[in-house]
Amino acid sequence: MIVNCVAYEEGRRLCNIDRGEIDDYRSRSNCFVWVALHDPDAEELSTFQDIFALHELAVEDALVGEQRPKVEEYGDALFVVTQVISVNQGEVQHGQLAIFAGPGYVLSVRQHSGRGFTDVRARCEREPELLKQGPAFVLYALMDVVVDRYFPVLEELEAELESIEDQIFVRGSARASLERLYQLKRRTMCVKHAVTPLAEASSHLFGGRVPTLCYETQDYFRDVYDHLHRIEAAIDTIRETIITAIQVNLSMVAIDESEVHKRLASWAAIFAVATILAGIWGMNFTHMPELDWRLGYPLALVMMVLCCGALYRRFRRTGWL
Amino acid sequence: MIVNCVAYEEGRRLCNIDRGEIDDYRSRSNCFVWVALHDPDAEELSTFQDIFALHELAVEDALVGEQRPKVEEYGDALFVVTQVISVNQGEVQHGQLAIFAGPGYVLSVRQHSGRGFTDVRARCEREPELLKQGPAFVLYALMDVVVDRYFPVLEELEAELESIEDQIFVRGSARASLERLYQLKRRTMCVKHAVTPLAEASSHLFGGRVPTLCYETQDYFRDVYDHLHRIEAAIDTIRETIITAIQVNLSMVAIDESEVHKRLASWAAIFAVATILAGIWGMNFTHMPELDWRLGYPLALVMMVLCCGALYRRFRRTGWL
Amino acid sequence: MIVNCVAYEEGRRLCNIDRGEIDDYRSRSNCFVWVALHDPDAEELSTFQDIFALHELAVEDALVGEQRPKVEEYGDALFVVTQVISVNQGEVQHGQLAIFAGPGYVLSVRQHSGRGFTDVRARCEREPELLKQGPAFVLYALMDVVVDRYFPVLEELEAELESIEDQIFVRGSARASLERLYQLKRRTMCVKHAVTPLAEASSHLFGGRVPTLCYETQDYFRDVYDHLHRIEAAIDTIRETIITAIQVNLSMVAIDESEVHKRLASWAAIFAVATILAGIWGMNFTHMPELDWRLGYPLALVMMVLCCGALYRRFRRTGWL
Amino acid sequence: MIVNCVAYEEGRRLCNIDRGEIDDYRSRSNCFVWVALHDPDAEELSTFQDIFALHELAVEDALVGEQRPKVEEYGDALFVVTQVISVNQGEVQHGQLAIFAGPGYVLSVRQHSGRGFTDVRARCEREPELLKQGPAFVLYALMDVVVDRYFPVLEELEAELESIEDQIFVRGSARASLERLYQLKRRTMCVKHAVTPLAEASSHLFGGRVPTLCYETQDYFRDVYDHLHRIEAAIDTIRETIITAIQVNLSMVAIDESEVHKRLASWAAIFAVATILAGIWGMNFTHMPELDWRLGYPLALVMMVLCCGALYRRFRRTGWL
Amino acid sequence: MIVNCVAYEEGRRLCNIDRGEIDDYRSRSNCFVWVALHDPDAEELSTFQDIFALHELAVEDALVGEQRPKVEEYGDALFVVTQVISVNQGEVQHGQLAIFAGPGYVLSVRQHSGRGFTDVRARCEREPELLKQGPAFVLYALMDVVVDRYFPVLEELEAELESIEDQIFVRGSARASLERLYQLKRRTMCVKHAVTPLAEASSHLFGGRVPTLCYETQDYFRDVYDHLHRIEAAIDTIRETIITAIQVNLSMVAIDESEVHKRLASWAAIFAVATILAGIWGMNFTHMPELDWRLGYPLALVMMVLCCGALYRRFRRTGWL
Repeated sequence: MIVNCVAYEEGRRLCNIDRGEIDDYRSRSNCFVWVALHDPDAEELSTFQDIFALHELAVEDALVGEQRPKVEEYGDALFVVTQVISVNQGEVQHGQLAIFAGPGYVLSVRQHSGRGFTDVRARCEREPELLKQGPAFVLYALMDVVVDRYFPVLEELEAELESIEDQIFVRGSARASLERLYQLKRRTMCVKHAVTPLAEASSHLFGGRVPTLCYETQDYFRDVYDHLHRIEAAIDTIRETIITAIQVNLSMVAIDESEVHKRLASWAAIFAVATILAGIWGMNFTHMPELDWRLGYPLALVMMVLCCGALYRRFRRTGWL
Repeated sequence: MIVNCVAYEEGRRLCNIDRGEIDDYRSRSNCFVWVALHDPDAEELSTFQDIFALHELAVEDALVGEQRPKVEEYGDALFVVTQVISVNQGEVQHGQLAIFAGPGYVLSVRQHSGRGFTDVRARCEREPELLKQGPAFVLYALMDVVVDRYFPVLEELEAELESIEDQIFVRGSARASLERLYQLKRRTMCVKHAVTPLAEASSHLFGGRVPTLCYETQDYFRDVYDHLHRIEAAIDTIRETIITAIQVNLSMVAIDESEVHKRLASWAAIFAVATILAGIWGMNFTHMPELDWRLGYPLALVMMVLCCGALYRRFRRTGWL
Repeated sequence: MIVNCVAYEEGRRLCNIDRGEIDDYRSRSNCFVWVALHDPDAEELSTFQDIFALHELAVEDALVGEQRPKVEEYGDALFVVTQVISVNQGEVQHGQLAIFAGPGYVLSVRQHSGRGFTDVRARCEREPELLKQGPAFVLYALMDVVVDRYFPVLEELEAELESIEDQIFVRGSARASLERLYQLKRRTMCVKHAVTPLAEASSHLFGGRVPTLCYETQDYFRDVYDHLHRIEAAIDTIRETIITAIQVNLSMVAIDESEVHKRLASWAAIFAVATILAGIWGMNFTHMPELDWRLGYPLALVMMVLCCGALYRRFRRTGWL
Repeated sequence: MIVNCVAYEEGRRLCNIDRGEIDDYRSRSNCFVWVALHDPDAEELSTFQDIFALHELAVEDALVGEQRPKVEEYGDALFVVTQVISVNQGEVQHGQLAIFAGPGYVLSVRQHSGRGFTDVRARCEREPELLKQGPAFVLYALMDVVVDRYFPVLEELEAELESIEDQIFVRGSARASLERLYQLKRRTMCVKHAVTPLAEASSHLFGGRVPTLCYETQDYFRDVYDHLHRIEAAIDTIRETIITAIQVNLSMVAIDESEVHKRLASWAAIFAVATILAGIWGMNFTHMPELDWRLGYPLALVMMVLCCGALYRRFRRTGWL
Repeated sequence: MIVNCVAYEEGRRLCNIDRGEIDDYRSRSNCFVWVALHDPDAEELSTFQDIFALHELAVEDALVGEQRPKVEEYGDALFVVTQVISVNQGEVQHGQLAIFAGPGYVLSVRQHSGRGFTDVRARCEREPELLKQGPAFVLYALMDVVVDRYFPVLEELEAELESIEDQIFVRGSARASLERLYQLKRRTMCVKHAVTPLAEASSHLFGGRVPTLCYETQDYFRDVYDHLHRIEAAIDTIRETIITAIQVNLSMVAIDESEVHKRLASWAAIFAVATILAGIWGMNFTHMPELDWRLGYPLALVMMVLCCGALYRRFRRTGWL
């Protein structure tokens, strides 16, 4: 589905144009065409493949979706694949935005992604002095917004981690914490797979040998790279913290366990003493004078209580109870 | 065993040819010969070694099998070793496809691999405009199909991992999960050994200094590399997840254990109280008025039940039972 | 808020100047202007953006705060972002110092940072022979003091670690140690995120290809890099030690646990023997001669004590009690 | 001790020669001398140091043994140190083969190594067309055989690992498995220290900037490197598997433990019920009608057995027994 | 404190000279001055700073001590910082040796280090043909002896590790092993911090782009690097082994624990059976024929012993006791 197909001159929107007119506008100087597609079928895409002379391998990648993020040069054109990520009720959702940018054109192909990028176009059109830098600036603007949408995802991961951390030192929540940590680990890996390759790839768009197309806009791509790098560092922290948290969780289980053991052992000792005393006065010796005392029985009970109580106080003091 | 030996001109199949004719066809311009061998013996291979002037070390590698995947340059020829992997009933099966590609020829040598590559030839012959790029394209086509066959293997590993994950938070399945995780780890390592060196090696077939043979087909080899890189990333995720899963499994054992302990401790306390009461009324004091009560015995039993019941309710409430 | 705006000539302070005069002084040879801002608003900063022709992306970074530390070149100017860290009652506090340095000017922008950098200016003014090296030296002086302020933070982390280590081999402190280790890990990660990117970035200010601005002051930037590298190594040691300490802590829990178990088992055995003896003499056999002995009862008690005592001594000797 | 000292011309053995004659033969074109020493003393080696003008540091390394494997260039000569490894009854044994190769000579110095390298010489002499490539080929042949001798060592390690793996999921073998894993880890580290530095060093003998001596024999050294790389990958797999196996072993201990606990708890419950029943009927209430029943006692015993049996069946069903 | 200040010509010692004479001797060709300082104060060092025109940052580093080992170039002079390590009764002791080497001079500054380097000077003076290579050779000789002193430290660490390993599979030593492992880890980290940066830094003194000063002595610095690399590898092995040993230790605790459990469980079962039997014959049923048997009591005791004995044998056979 074609979302838009617009021609720009000197950074200013001319008009919506038709497929057939694209070549006219591209041939004008200081003019470029920006086409946005959404879940196109193979046929639709192949029309534009012919118009813009796209490489078949790139077209295939744009069509299939679920590619690794990457930046590839085909002659003087660039092909960029990014993953669009959003979190919906704890579930990470993936889409793909593939961008073809070359002299006089930008073609963006969005796949499986709920939220569109029309706001990017609107913002660009409000800043014609920037937009007149041409296709490379559009490429930057699209990558920038894709990357900006990673931040709320990252914050959600961090919020979840903090919520687990609050729980982790609370007794009895080990099982729940563990499941949440495991799920969080998986989600973090997902995001990492979107971010790391893109960071690596985008580092080729500034600095050393740079594709001609984005020679003038290097500073902008460095900014994108910088954001990606920051996200990467945050993800690495999350991962490392999760690993530590899993270990801490295991230790907490062991510590709780050992406290339970001590309490259990204390009560066992108390009960054992009472049992032994009862057993002793239950023996059938003929000559056990205390058995015949008037107050023998109550005294025995009192003695039991006293012994148990003494033990109880002792365990209390050593912190076992 | 010779599977095929075919001459191509301008990307179109000419005919099956005989060993003796190979030199004739190679000397024609725009012509190349594509030979496919399957588990050849040393003698058979040495015939072709003479015809194509292959290096003895490469021939040895092709013959022996079980090599590390690699891409080697011998003068203007390329020697590529790939591992062919398939999963059969949970067992990873290895084969080897060694490819010699040079000016005017491609020689593929398949070892211990169940499934052949005749479909590659068929596909290539259907696209003569691509095939006329010559031996480098055939090399690409063969590598591409080898790599494509890694994907179902990868999916099998991922499916197994997901199936273990479903099991891991279920009580009592720790032992089975552990064995499956361990096996999965081993299998993942196997696949990794096929993928990582090939990814590393194939990265030399595009970009910087490229062998002359594949100068024109760089974009294709970048695509192969990209696929390998994607597989590598997926494998790394699997490995990391397995390591986490093993730790989580250990924690789950500890958590289950501690729950068993609590339940055990609760019942021990309940039984101990009953035992003490029975012990008390079993003492032989002369003056124990309740022993002579008409309803002494039933009251004692009721009291035992009440005490135990009270404890039971208490443990229930604290979640120990 | 403008903290200072001072012009220097040949390393000597001329006078406080006004925004409008900046251009005058910059155009003189051997003259430069050093402006310090503190939590400026967007408008204030944009004034200086116009004066010094700063890049909009850099200005945005300086304004927002919470950036990853970095060193960026914009033409012949440098833009440096550093994190200012202090520890206040166990809490790591972050600020940001962004520095723009170009021909004839230095502009420092401090965000959320409690302690200012006026002492840097004072120190620089006391050494005019160094300060006459110009903006690059001011840049160095500011980076140097930012880095110097990491050392007390580092020492606090190390002191905390040592205090935990003293505690870790003491029984019964596992839970507290664990929480402290976990918190320390988090804080260490925070500091690491301030140090590592800055170390990496500052390594571009000396050695190979160096920005023109700091060509003469390379040795100074190497010194900054060297300090950062030292801090990095110390942080890595802390992290590795924390990981080991968490493992050791878990082992200590297990060891304590196993000692508790042995003691528990010993007492259970002692009690069990007494219980069995009492049970035996509580049996109702008609012919149990010892029951009728005059000294039967005391002898029985003595025997119980002897048996228990023998067991106690035995366990003592094997170290279980 | 001098093992051999032979002159070769055009790849063919001329004759055994004496030390004094070495210079004569070296000066002839297409001629080289191959000297093999075995545990030489300092004096012996210094004779050859003078003849071949070897560097004192290299000679010292050759003499002392226990060096890190390495490849060093001294002018147009090469100095290669390799570790010769064999496994004898589970013990890794180290020797050293140091090789000096320069224009017109090869000098190999074997230290503490049981098995000699005379078979290498024999093999080389059978292939004069290869041997005529000169000292570099001899160097290759020696390195190749050293590396080939790593393979059986590697296989022994893998066999041991597999044997441990068979044991690891068997109950009650945890202690033995652990000791074996630990020993295997140590042995693997030993082999790794022989392989990794040599792989790294030998990678400088082909590809980019190559010592003049081995310019013609690059393909051979690439083959050696390839073998070393394969061994390295296998060692890394072994190490990673050992680490996993140690974790799995710990988990198996915990799982076994928890099964023992459950069984223990079950029997404790069964015994406790019997004890309580016996305690109840051992109470001294006057009015306990069942005590006077004719069949009271057998019924009581039956009831005990029934209660215990019911519990037993229940635990059986839940898998605790 | 000045230890020595000696002039050398053509590698031969001329005489002890005074500070004032240094410039005279430096200006002669083939002459250089070697000054050794020990814990100098700021003033003393600043005298030499003026004489040799040392950079203030380097002087500061030499004065302060506790620097990261490094090799820095200042113009045509080199500044090397090394850590001098010795082990004294299990405590790692740090000193620092900073070396300034430039055309015509070497200045060594020793800080906090017990043992001096006068033996280096003596050895150098015995080999004038080497010493005439000038300051670079002195630099090498000093670095070489610093590195050589790491070997006994390393051996001490390895001896300690082996001693712990002997202990680790012995029961009941887990706590002691753990503390020793933890201390060893810390000490190993200390040594690592002395070795790793120096290895990295010294790798710039040979091979590619080399400071002019040590162009002629590259082979010597490669030897130093080689030693450092060997130490590094050994340290890495120690660290990895410690990590494994800590895990193994934890596993051993768990295994011991589980064996204690089994023994405990066995005795509990044996006692429980005796208790139940005593309880049964302690019941008050009127009709319990065996109570009236003449041999009832001894038979009962025999039966108890038999039951317990049977259980004991059974547990013995299954290895629980």
